[in-house]
Amino acid sequence: MDRFMKVAYEEALSNIQKKEGGPFGAVIVKDHKIIARAHNEVLLRNDPTAHAEVMAIRKACKKLRTFNLEGCELYASSKPCPMCKGAVQWSGIRELYFSGDYDDTDQLNFGDSAFDEDFMRIEQTWHQIDQDSFPEIIRAFSDLKDDVHY
Amino acid sequence: MDRFMKVAYEEALSNIQKKEGGPFGAVIVKDHKIIARAHNEVLLRNDPTAHAEVMAIRKACKKLRTFNLEGCELYASSKPCPMCKGAVQWSGIRELYFSGDYDDTDQLNFGDSAFDEDFMRIEQTWHQIDQDSFPEIIRAFSDLKDDVHY
Repeated sequence: MDRFMKVAYEEALSNIQKKEGGPFGAVIVKDHKIIARAHNEVLLRNDPTAHAEVMAIRKACKKLRTFNLEGCELYASSKPCPMCKGAVQWSGIRELYFSGDYDDTDQLNFGDSAFDEDFMRIEQTWHQIDQDSFPEIIRAFSDLKDDVHY
Repeated sequence: MDRFMKVAYEEALSNIQKKEGGPFGAVIVKDHKIIARAHNEVLLRNDPTAHAEVMAIRKACKKLRTFNLEGCELYASSKPCPMCKGAVQWSGIRELYFSGDYDDTDQLNFGDSAFDEDFMRIEQTWHQIDQDSFPEIIRAFSDLKDDVHY
């Protein structure tokens, strides 16, 4: 087994006893060294965004003092959900390895396949309002913005 | 202007001065009362996941001591990115109102349209490895799982 995936598994399996959240682990690697390892902490933190991948990204960013993890790799015990996919994308991580697919995690009853299907539809219930006010933000930002882009 | 969207705008506009992150605000409402208000804190926290919507969800969950925000509404100054969309979905929030669309936020140079397009493609570079080890996690979890589902 891949040595970094093994650590992601250790995180996932440890959480079955700890019950800080679901059995999911993630590891972030840079230059062949582990920068951060994490597991799902949704229950511990009462935070539905505290998935293993998000926790690993937060830890790695804290350690490296940056919000940009370009050049890092992420190993996840199972395929990142759409939220984590977006988090990985914003972090700048481009190399990602996962083990279990949604079909596998469905056996854990976390409903990843259903979530992924709903993800495609959910915007249908969103409402756009007050769009004509938005230039207010564009103007204020254009007046003051500096060179930080992310 | 909608009174809750107005607060989301206040958060977005305040951040142009504070520069804790981009000019994005979000508000979570339950029973016509504001539970949480937040803005983007990516720069302040060095956390690429600290978007306004995610921060508002974390705050609201902390306040209500739950990871489930069913029955709440979210107001966002601009359309949630795919990461935030997933966060909203996991939070259980089904009523969502936004003001600026991706075309509008593109004028802020945060690249939301490009991000959304890349989101559809990014999995093409992901690698599945060690899938045959995944039953180890399924077995361990099946042996011990309790009734908490999320």
